[in-house]
Amino acid sequence: MSDSYLSVDLGGTSLRMALLDEEGTFLAQQVVSSDLVRKGEDLIKVLSQEAELFRFRAEKIDAEIRGMALGIPGLVDGGRGVVRQSPHFPEWRDVPLREALQPALPFPVVMENDANQAALGEAWKGAGREWPSFILLTLGTGVGGGVILDGKIFHGPNGFAGEMGHIVLERRGLPGALGSRGTLETLASQSGLRLQLEALQKAGGLPAAISGLNAADPDLPEKLFQAASAGESVALEIWREFGAALGCGIASLGLAFGFERFVVGGGLSAAWRFFEQGLRKEIRERVYPCLAERMAAAPAKLGNNAGLLGGIRLLQTAQSTSCSPP
Amino acid sequence: MSDSYLSVDLGGTSLRMALLDEEGTFLAQQVVSSDLVRKGEDLIKVLSQEAELFRFRAEKIDAEIRGMALGIPGLVDGGRGVVRQSPHFPEWRDVPLREALQPALPFPVVMENDANQAALGEAWKGAGREWPSFILLTLGTGVGGGVILDGKIFHGPNGFAGEMGHIVLERRGLPGALGSRGTLETLASQSGLRLQLEALQKAGGLPAAISGLNAADPDLPEKLFQAASAGESVALEIWREFGAALGCGIASLGLAFGFERFVVGGGLSAAWRFFEQGLRKEIRERVYPCLAERMAAAPAKLGNNAGLLGGIRLLQTAQSTSCSPP
Repeated sequence: MSDSYLSVDLGGTSLRMALLDEEGTFLAQQVVSSDLVRKGEDLIKVLSQEAELFRFRAEKIDAEIRGMALGIPGLVDGGRGVVRQSPHFPEWRDVPLREALQPALPFPVVMENDANQAALGEAWKGAGREWPSFILLTLGTGVGGGVILDGKIFHGPNGFAGEMGHIVLERRGLPGALGSRGTLETLASQSGLRLQLEALQKAGGLPAAISGLNAADPDLPEKLFQAASAGESVALEIWREFGAALGCGIASLGLAFGFERFVVGGGLSAAWRFFEQGLRKEIRERVYPCLAERMAAAPAKLGNNAGLLGGIRLLQTAQSTSCSPP
Repeated sequence: MSDSYLSVDLGGTSLRMALLDEEGTFLAQQVVSSDLVRKGEDLIKVLSQEAELFRFRAEKIDAEIRGMALGIPGLVDGGRGVVRQSPHFPEWRDVPLREALQPALPFPVVMENDANQAALGEAWKGAGREWPSFILLTLGTGVGGGVILDGKIFHGPNGFAGEMGHIVLERRGLPGALGSRGTLETLASQSGLRLQLEALQKAGGLPAAISGLNAADPDLPEKLFQAASAGESVALEIWREFGAALGCGIASLGLAFGFERFVVGGGLSAAWRFFEQGLRKEIRERVYPCLAERMAAAPAKLGNNAGLLGGIRLLQTAQSTSCSPP
């Protein structure tokens, strides 16, 4: 019997589950639509059923599951095992996930915010491997954040540090989640691209290649990426602005808490080469030169797998902690 | 011979030095103009001379000085004993303060960013006494910040955490320090009040009571305070906006790093009752309700003495650390 770990990564569009060995090699995988878990009770049901199936799969390959890690977007109270709420799953309220799952499972269940879990993954095997402390920003449907301080997830005094998508960059900007305005998320995420394109379309004067784009199209980032690859100047400008907003957020986070390493992940980090210059320019223009020259930002390396790998790391660390005296 | 401590607090307008006993009672005080130390070498000269005078004063009252703490605005590298730079003293560059002062003094010299030192003072005897972790924002000529995490100053990975005045709230706002725009400092400090009044005056239509104000007047905050006390609606609106900007910054800091306790100090915190509502409204509107309801902001309690008291605490803690095994 070899050791294995069950790791879950829930995103705005899909719920991924994987069985991995202790080095992070994938042994089995399953992907279902996130639409199945729009309600809190459905999340519990789906995860219970899937965990059962994975136990069956693990037995077949003679692997023993040592634990299950759940990476969930939103406010995750890992200590109490409760998902408080999530902007992308508005129907969830205080979902007692661990209490519901744990009794049926013979291994520990740990829970963490999805971006925190991804940050731990990048720290273990990705872009943060050389960096004891860094901030991960994940650019997807929204913007997530994870803070690694001295190799560990930093949860902050209230337990929910890392809500970087909601930091404010344009006090009177476009409306976003939580009733706020002009947050990083309204500028540098998939919904941010939609909002920015809508604003440009309203202002008029877009070239044909861009004006034909539908802001509601779920493939908007991909199409803006293609337009930029084709050299379309408005698309290049949209990505530059995207990078400028992100750089502005990074400058603020770096100045406020003294961080100088940043990893940019999530699906939209694929456009890194189109927004990197805008990002770096903003850091140079807003931070003390002697600090700016030491600041480094890099694209994430583990893609979709960061969260799943971070989950294993979380289990390994939690287990070693609970085995050793305080 | 009783123990005493020499503590220094350098602000944009005055340099304060005090001899205090171990409980923080003032034994002697000296205030000189900050104009004397606009150059780095003058800072060294003035502090050397004043330290010598305080040693003489201490002898007279049979007190032995156990250490000297320097609270300095800007980027202070306490480990190396160097002031890197300071927005309010633009001529300073890598001033080797400790190396210059220490040889002539028979007690340790410690250095810290002024707002960090003030935060430690508020943690010891002020508004943060019940709070293991909080962020202090000091509103004066500019905006300073200090982060207390589990009772200690948090310096962050680069050593310079707390530069809260430079976080960005209006990406395309008015120009401020470091070549940045729309920072917290351009909205909620003495220079921020000047910038905001100038913008209002340019837009025209101010009532007589306000339009007569001179934006360059160093007593502008005091005059705006009096106008608000007299019920002048534009002055009340200026303070409300001041509070809204501050609340917006607090919301961002709380969301990003999970802090839920904030202390507002510095000279402009005297107008707390005029900006408190604007501040609280912004927190409610921009933070998850379940986190917003736990967030608390309070005015600082120690006024001008926070930094001086924090200095003692820094010496006491540093000394006890160096005396006990790791």
